[in-house]
Amino acid sequence: MKMEEFEVNPWDVKGVVDYEKLVKDFGISRLDEKVLKRIEKITGELHPMLRRGVFFAHRDFEWLLNEYEKGNKFFLYTGCGPSGPLHLGHIGTWLFTKWLQDKFDAALYFQFTDDEKFLFKNKSYEEIQKYLEDNMADVAALGFDPRKTHFLIDTRHASLLYPIAIKFAKKITFSIVKASFGMTNEDNIGKIFYTAMQAAPAVVPSVLAKKNIPCLIPLGVDQDPHFRVARDVYPKLGYYKPAILHSVFWPALKGPEGKMSSSDESSAIFLHDTPKDVERKIKKYAFSGGRDTIDEHRKLGGNPDVDVSFQFLKFMFIEDDAELARIESEYRSGRMLTSELKAIAIKKINAFLKKHQKKRAKITQKVLERNWLWAS
Amino acid sequence: MKMEEFEVNPWDVKGVVDYEKLVKDFGISRLDEKVLKRIEKITGELHPMLRRGVFFAHRDFEWLLNEYEKGNKFFLYTGCGPSGPLHLGHIGTWLFTKWLQDKFDAALYFQFTDDEKFLFKNKSYEEIQKYLEDNMADVAALGFDPRKTHFLIDTRHASLLYPIAIKFAKKITFSIVKASFGMTNEDNIGKIFYTAMQAAPAVVPSVLAKKNIPCLIPLGVDQDPHFRVARDVYPKLGYYKPAILHSVFWPALKGPEGKMSSSDESSAIFLHDTPKDVERKIKKYAFSGGRDTIDEHRKLGGNPDVDVSFQFLKFMFIEDDAELARIESEYRSGRMLTSELKAIAIKKINAFLKKHQKKRAKITQKVLERNWLWAS
Repeated sequence: MKMEEFEVNPWDVKGVVDYEKLVKDFGISRLDEKVLKRIEKITGELHPMLRRGVFFAHRDFEWLLNEYEKGNKFFLYTGCGPSGPLHLGHIGTWLFTKWLQDKFDAALYFQFTDDEKFLFKNKSYEEIQKYLEDNMADVAALGFDPRKTHFLIDTRHASLLYPIAIKFAKKITFSIVKASFGMTNEDNIGKIFYTAMQAAPAVVPSVLAKKNIPCLIPLGVDQDPHFRVARDVYPKLGYYKPAILHSVFWPALKGPEGKMSSSDESSAIFLHDTPKDVERKIKKYAFSGGRDTIDEHRKLGGNPDVDVSFQFLKFMFIEDDAELARIESEYRSGRMLTSELKAIAIKKINAFLKKHQKKRAKITQKVLERNWLWAS
Repeated sequence: MKMEEFEVNPWDVKGVVDYEKLVKDFGISRLDEKVLKRIEKITGELHPMLRRGVFFAHRDFEWLLNEYEKGNKFFLYTGCGPSGPLHLGHIGTWLFTKWLQDKFDAALYFQFTDDEKFLFKNKSYEEIQKYLEDNMADVAALGFDPRKTHFLIDTRHASLLYPIAIKFAKKITFSIVKASFGMTNEDNIGKIFYTAMQAAPAVVPSVLAKKNIPCLIPLGVDQDPHFRVARDVYPKLGYYKPAILHSVFWPALKGPEGKMSSSDESSAIFLHDTPKDVERKIKKYAFSGGRDTIDEHRKLGGNPDVDVSFQFLKFMFIEDDAELARIESEYRSGRMLTSELKAIAIKKINAFLKKHQKKRAKITQKVLERNWLWAS
C-alpha cells in the first residue's frame, strides 16, 4: 500500500487516512464554523472534540438543529461491537455522546452488535458473549443517564430489532452490499444481512412511540458506510434519515497508520489497564514526535502533530485549550522533551482510568439488567 | 418449458414433477417397503399418505427410528409461510404431522415464516401479519395437542431464533445460497439470509433443553433445499442432522402442473371456502380424467391417475383403501362418470371443511396466545 493510499470500511482501516478525501468520497459535509457556532449557541459551549476537529464531519446535522429549534427533539444512537476488551479508541465517541445527551437532554439507544462480531470475527459465540458482558459494564460506567439510556443487544433484543431489520433488508440487494463493503460470494450470509441490523436502532424509538422522531448518530467515520447503504431506505419506510456526526480515528499507540485495535495489545491502552501497564505502553510504544537526540530536540523542537501522547491529550485528556496550547508550544519549541510529554500523558490517562475503574466495579450483571438493558 | 422439464425450489414449482428424478437430484431416499414395515411395526398401522405414496421419500429416517427404538425420542418440526389464506394443498403435511405426533407422542415446533413471506413476496408487512393471524387459527384448529405444540413466529420469536440462525449463517456462503436457490446479486439481503432462520427450529428444543434431541421434519419436497444447505452445519454446531419425510405436491385444481397456490383463486380450495364455493370450483376447474362424451367414457373408461377429484380423495378424503379402490375401478371402467366422481369429492371436502370451520371459529387471538404460542 502506497503512502497516499488508504482504506476505510466498518471492519478495516488501513494506511494514513486522508480525511479531506474521505469527506468527498463518502459525500459527507465538513463541520464548519457556521455549524459549530449554531451548536455553541444552543449548548453554551463547544465540546473539546468539536473545537479540535475530532468530530469533523456530518450528515444532515443542520436539518437536525432546525428540527430541534422547532421543538422537535431528537434521540441519540451509537453502538459498540463486542470482540475484545475496550480501549481508549472506543470511548471517545461515547464520551462525546454523553455530552450530547446532557446538553440536548436526549434519550440514547446504545446498540451492542454481538451478532456482527460473531459473524465477522474468528471467535466463538461464547467468547463474544463474554466480551459483551464486559463491554456493557464499561459503557454503563461512562456516565450516561441510566433513566434515558437503553442498551440494545442484537441477539437478546432480536424480537425488537429483526422485524425492523427485514424491512431495510427487503430494499437492499447483495449488489449494494458488495459495492459498499467489498463483500464477495464467499462471505457468509450473516455478514451480508448484518447491515440491516445496524440500520434498525435509528428508528426503534419511532417504532415504539408510533411517531417519527429525529435521530442523531455520533460514530467513527468507518461506520458511515452502513448508513450510506440504509440512507435512502429510511424515508421509504416513512422515517427521517438519521443525522450523523463523524469522528476521526483515535490514533493507534504505534503511530498514525490505522486505528487502535483490541486485537493488538501493543496498539491500544485498555480500560482495564493498570497504572503500570499504561506507563509501560506509553513509554515503550507511544509513537513520538521528538528528535533522535536531546540536543537535536532542544535545537529543532518536537512535532506534536504526529506525537501520539500529545494527540491523546488533545483528543480527550486536557479540556483546557490554554493548557493544551502551552504544552504544544513547549514541545514544538524543544523546551519540553518527549519523556516529559509522556509523563503528562501517563498521569492524565491513569487519573481517568482510576476513576473509570472505580465506577465500573459497581456495575454488576444485576445493575445492567435493572438499569441499563432495554425491556419491552 | 418442455414437458419433461420441471423446476422445484422453495418458492417455485414449475412443470410436471418427475419424482424419480427428484429423488436422484436431491440425493434423498425412497420410502421403501422395508421402512414402511418398520413404521407399521411401531405405530400399528400406516397412515394413508404413507400407504399411497403421498409421503414418498426421506433423509435419515431409518436412523431416527433406530434412535426411537433405543428410547431416544424425537420432536417434530414443520412450518407455514403466511402469504395468503390456507388451502387444501397446505394442510396435507400438517394432518400427517398430527398423526406422527399422536403415534410417537412427540412435541411439535411449528414455525410461521412471516419474515420469509415478507421478504420474498410483493406484500406489505401488515398484510403478512394479517395472514399470519389467520393461518395460525387454521393450524391450531387441525387437532394438534396444544400441550405438546409450540408455535414459533420468526419475527415475534426472533430473540430465540436469530441467535441460533446466525450460527448457521456463519457457515453458509452466498455462493452456496446462489447455487442452491438460484439467487442472484440483485436479490435482497433478507432473502439471502433467510435460509438460516428456517434451519434454526430444528435445534430449538436441543438449545432449550441443553441436550441433543433428534428432530423429524415432515415437509413438501420443495422445502428440502433449505435443509440440504444446512445439513452439514448441524453436526458442526454439535447437533444431529434432522431426519426428513418428503411429500409430493398436492395437485392443483386445474391439473398436474405446479402445485396449489394461494395467489391463484382458481388453483385451490381454501379452508374458508363455503360449500357453494367448493361445488363451483370442483365442477368448473377440477381437472378431469374423463372422456369427451359420455358414450366414449362408458366405452373407454376414465383415468383416475390424472383426475384431480380422484387425487383429492386419494390424498386426504378417503381413508378406507377398499372404498378408494372401488371408486377407482368404477371410474376406470367407465361405470362412474366424472360428474359422479366430482359429487363424491364435493361431499367429502365439504364435510371436512364444515368440521374444520367449526373448530376454527373457537380459536381466538386469546386462545392462540394462551395455548399455542411459544413463551419463554
